[in-house]
Amino acid sequence: MLKMHDIITKKQDGRELDEEEIAFFVKGVADGSIPDYQISALLMAIWFKGMTEEETVTLTECIADSGEMNILPSVNGKKVDKHSTGGVGDKVSLIVGPMVAAANKGIYVPKMAGRGLGFTGGTLDKLESCKGVDTEISAEEFERIVSEIGFCIAGQSKRLAPADSKLISLRDVTGTANCIPLIAASVMSKKIASGNECIVLDVKCGSGSFCKTVRDAEELARLMVRIGARENRKTVALITDMSAPLGTAVGNSVELIEAIRVLEGRGDEELTELCITVAANMLYAANAGDYQTCVAIAEETIYDGSAKEKLADLVERLGGDRRYIYDVSLFEESNVTAMLVSDRSGYITRIDAMGVGKAAAVLGAGREVIGASIDHTAGILLNKKIGDRIEEGEALATIMAKDLERAQFGMEYLFKAVTIGSEPPEKRKIIIKCIGAEC
Amino acid sequence: MLKMHDIITKKQDGRELDEEEIAFFVKGVADGSIPDYQISALLMAIWFKGMTEEETVTLTECIADSGEMNILPSVNGKKVDKHSTGGVGDKVSLIVGPMVAAANKGIYVPKMAGRGLGFTGGTLDKLESCKGVDTEISAEEFERIVSEIGFCIAGQSKRLAPADSKLISLRDVTGTANCIPLIAASVMSKKIASGNECIVLDVKCGSGSFCKTVRDAEELARLMVRIGARENRKTVALITDMSAPLGTAVGNSVELIEAIRVLEGRGDEELTELCITVAANMLYAANAGDYQTCVAIAEETIYDGSAKEKLADLVERLGGDRRYIYDVSLFEESNVTAMLVSDRSGYITRIDAMGVGKAAAVLGAGREVIGASIDHTAGILLNKKIGDRIEEGEALATIMAKDLERAQFGMEYLFKAVTIGSEPPEKRKIIIKCIGAEC
Repeated sequence: MLKMHDIITKKQDGRELDEEEIAFFVKGVADGSIPDYQISALLMAIWFKGMTEEETVTLTECIADSGEMNILPSVNGKKVDKHSTGGVGDKVSLIVGPMVAAANKGIYVPKMAGRGLGFTGGTLDKLESCKGVDTEISAEEFERIVSEIGFCIAGQSKRLAPADSKLISLRDVTGTANCIPLIAASVMSKKIASGNECIVLDVKCGSGSFCKTVRDAEELARLMVRIGARENRKTVALITDMSAPLGTAVGNSVELIEAIRVLEGRGDEELTELCITVAANMLYAANAGDYQTCVAIAEETIYDGSAKEKLADLVERLGGDRRYIYDVSLFEESNVTAMLVSDRSGYITRIDAMGVGKAAAVLGAGREVIGASIDHTAGILLNKKIGDRIEEGEALATIMAKDLERAQFGMEYLFKAVTIGSEPPEKRKIIIKCIGAEC
Repeated sequence: MLKMHDIITKKQDGRELDEEEIAFFVKGVADGSIPDYQISALLMAIWFKGMTEEETVTLTECIADSGEMNILPSVNGKKVDKHSTGGVGDKVSLIVGPMVAAANKGIYVPKMAGRGLGFTGGTLDKLESCKGVDTEISAEEFERIVSEIGFCIAGQSKRLAPADSKLISLRDVTGTANCIPLIAASVMSKKIASGNECIVLDVKCGSGSFCKTVRDAEELARLMVRIGARENRKTVALITDMSAPLGTAVGNSVELIEAIRVLEGRGDEELTELCITVAANMLYAANAGDYQTCVAIAEETIYDGSAKEKLADLVERLGGDRRYIYDVSLFEESNVTAMLVSDRSGYITRIDAMGVGKAAAVLGAGREVIGASIDHTAGILLNKKIGDRIEEGEALATIMAKDLERAQFGMEYLFKAVTIGSEPPEKRKIIIKCIGAEC
């Protein structure tokens, strides 16, 4: 009979766990028969000793298998998912879902998201900053929305890979969140279980993400792409920059508003570029045409306003008021709005994603413990981006918070995250590398 | 404010934890404010990254400080403790306590022992195989016995280093029992807290112990000796062989009986040598004379029967019948006694301590989970030792168990633990090295 103690010591010794051992572990995680302290001991041993690709594939399959399989609705076309490994200011899912649906090519985007911990809320929280929107809907409602408007963003089914939720919550508090095989198995198990045919991965790289180096990001991306291929899913990955926040808004309602701006064709340039690339890769993966055609299709959904219509449709179907999408002044405003003013002239050479994320968390935009409430109105609007010229006394950013104390505290964090130099820095490339993807 | 997550990641990075961080950790272990999964994650990170001597000393002090200090009775003389890191067939404490007390030099041995998990019971269980003996006595009773007969072996006070019990129980089940700084801190914290002036450490080395190599055992021994010195305790260590069981008996009552044989001057040669060396080092550490004098004193307590008297005194004071010590036929016998007979002639080249330990556990002599009952009558008596000649059909060992099934099962384990070769092996040295000790 297998014993958890022996599995832990085997991994401590750096030996490869076999299928039976990994299955025993995941089953014990899912049914609660393995105590948390043994789970976290094994996670830490894996953090130090890693996992082979074989082990990671097996772990992925076992986690997928811990819940119901193929829970996504059956639709009359291909199902495409997009997943980001997470960063600061990442509102891409709110933009590309509507774009792909608006392309009207019989390609569906049934996106289930979890509510993790982080500097800001997740995609669900950002969407819910639109009054009335509730993303916790039934499976039937999810299916109806997907088949009728072509996409949906909603809370992840409890039946989807339950072992993963348990592992994520333990990893978050035991220093094992940033472990490449564990991240790969976590991401891919949910994609495999839900039943998507195509997966476009946005692997973030830089201070605001798990992978601090391109090397780590590439390792993670290639591993996930290989796992996807082995499970017969068309999987591609983009490695994108997360050394600075994505776009200009960091928070919840401010990010939804920024997403609307992109869909109006007047969003931040880098963010727009990334969204078009991601959407085009989703369309391309699902065979909507050659890549350049897919880019054109994606761009067209912005120019003709059809993608924005789709976002409004989703808001309405989730119980919200579609007018918010057309008139962002309807969004609730924070109690306190403050300006961070530059104390010198020069060029912005650094806006550290991690630092901005911490500032947003301090302002109240994120949650530290599961189930905590977040302040949808809190956040940061950057007036300047890396490379921009700034003069002494000019506003660098706008800060929004519930009270002055938080605003002051967040301001201090934000101040430390920005560097102003005398020379303009090299322009960053938002898309660093493509693994199986086009760009 | 300190966060456990940050302490874990600091150790993952291999950085040294400071006093404040270690104190925060130990306090959280003792008061239950840090969840088990974070404790075990940090233990695993320490297992991989180690601790500096500074960290280990701080950990030792914090664990000691988690309970009451100086809980040993005040006596009119020096208090000496002896500690073994644990092995198979180790009944030394049952022998050297009586010897030092019988030396009558105003040196006291107030020994508190825990009840861990293991192949066989611990010292307390072995002592309790004598009918009527109960080692769970009050602090007052412990003090009375120590001051009146010069020594006592009893259950450890719950007030002694409570953080240690918690850490030990987690380490046992998470693969982190065999971690040198954690072992050192665990052993030394209890010695420091209890208030002994002198400490003689018996650090086991070989398959039946935590330290598989002399190098590891020496590292552990030197670390504990240095910690003792820094805490102003006279601390010395012997590194002794645990590749084969100690003596000829492995179990509970069989080990107490073997202890009696040593005190009668007709015990196993190696075991007797080790006991005299340990007892002499205890006397020497407490300034009973030069080392050779201490050896002579220790030997004399065997020849004149005074040490055996002391053991009988202890049994009586703990509620048992002292006649057991003079007539071992009074000990309860197991239901089943079986012989393991050799299938070939030759020389015994290997009796693997770990293998014999597992056999004893299978026979019912140990406990796998805390609080489980053990079979005092179960065990193994080795008729042959390494280097002995054996003929085909000759009995290698006697096995005692509650039923035939267990006996059969234990026999299989024991069979695998023994190797018979055509040439006699080199004689093992029971005492491998002395660290500050004499031998």
